[in-house]
Amino acid sequence: MPLVRITLAAGTSPEHRRALADGIHQALVETAGVPPDDRFQSVHEVPPADLHWSATYLGLQRTPAVVFVQIFLNLGRTVEVKKALYARIAAKLAAAPGMRPEDVLVNLVEVPRENWSFGGGIMSYPPAP
Amino acid sequence: MPLVRITLAAGTSPEHRRALADGIHQALVETAGVPPDDRFQSVHEVPPADLHWSATYLGLQRTPAVVFVQIFLNLGRTVEVKKALYARIAAKLAAAPGMRPEDVLVNLVEVPRENWSFGGGIMSYPPAP
Amino acid sequence: MPLVRITLAAGTSPEHRRALADGIHQALVETAGVPPDDRFQSVHEVPPADLHWSATYLGLQRTPAVVFVQIFLNLGRTVEVKKALYARIAAKLAAAPGMRPEDVLVNLVEVPRENWSFGGGIMSYPPAP
Repeated sequence: MPLVRITLAAGTSPEHRRALADGIHQALVETAGVPPDDRFQSVHEVPPADLHWSATYLGLQRTPAVVFVQIFLNLGRTVEVKKALYARIAAKLAAAPGMRPEDVLVNLVEVPRENWSFGGGIMSYPPAP
Repeated sequence: MPLVRITLAAGTSPEHRRALADGIHQALVETAGVPPDDRFQSVHEVPPADLHWSATYLGLQRTPAVVFVQIFLNLGRTVEVKKALYARIAAKLAAAPGMRPEDVLVNLVEVPRENWSFGGGIMSYPPAP
Repeated sequence: MPLVRITLAAGTSPEHRRALADGIHQALVETAGVPPDDRFQSVHEVPPADLHWSATYLGLQRTPAVVFVQIFLNLGRTVEVKKALYARIAAKLAAAPGMRPEDVLVNLVEVPRENWSFGGGIMSYPPAP
């Protein structure tokens, strides 16, 4: 159910981008109860001049390797789960492809369960009562 | 008012992508009360290696032709309308450009009416009371 | 905290796209209380045939220069702030790069404060009580 959009500056290797996608998915599985086979992600490269990011916002030092990770997922994760997810994503991407944690930005956008069709023209999850 | 983002692997024809966009819009008009001239969509191709999708999640068989359809729209559609929308999108895209319904994924992201400006620097819809 | 996604038809200059991003950020700072160094934006060009837009919806005249501005931000801006934001974005982009206000579309997607990590693997803002 998560739909993940990964945005970064062009110029990385396919292996780098694959490791980003892999690590984000593993973090979702390990911390947010996402089934291992529930994986839907797209990676979007833009020219470096078309990616704008603050090098210092909130006192963190960011570099041109910065990646924006936007995760659309169901409502209901607790604050603690979200904290664990942020930490795990940063840790996974530090391990591979070797990102600085300061360069990993995450935004969650939550939707109700009825807002997904994963194929077949049907609503994938029963609505919350 | 819907803003539609269509994401798929690069390598399709412009006609294929046009048919995707057309069919999704027609389904919105026919099932969700969207005016025919309320059409705002972008299609985003990514290299095949940058699109990650489960071939089997929820027991459906997906192929590299898979398309992610993300629809940002106003709050208020009922569960029944959403079900009809999912079914109609899949049916339209089966008719043209000939998609397998299993390869059509849809995610809805709902916002309040006050969250749109369709041009002119003005709020397009009066806020809900 | 805003994450801004700007979508337009390919064929513009880097300077045009830079002015779009600059103007949108300035409008957020001036009307919506966004810190000047809280800037995270990506610009996405698509082939002109992959951008679909109504030339007349709601009685406005749009042209192929149309730009979709999607802003993910925290919940809590009032209707008045949103109105001011729409007006300011249109005014800024009219000044530079010289957009017709009718060609500037804005969509806001709001999330709770706990839905952001701006790096370092940590939740950036304390959750609302």
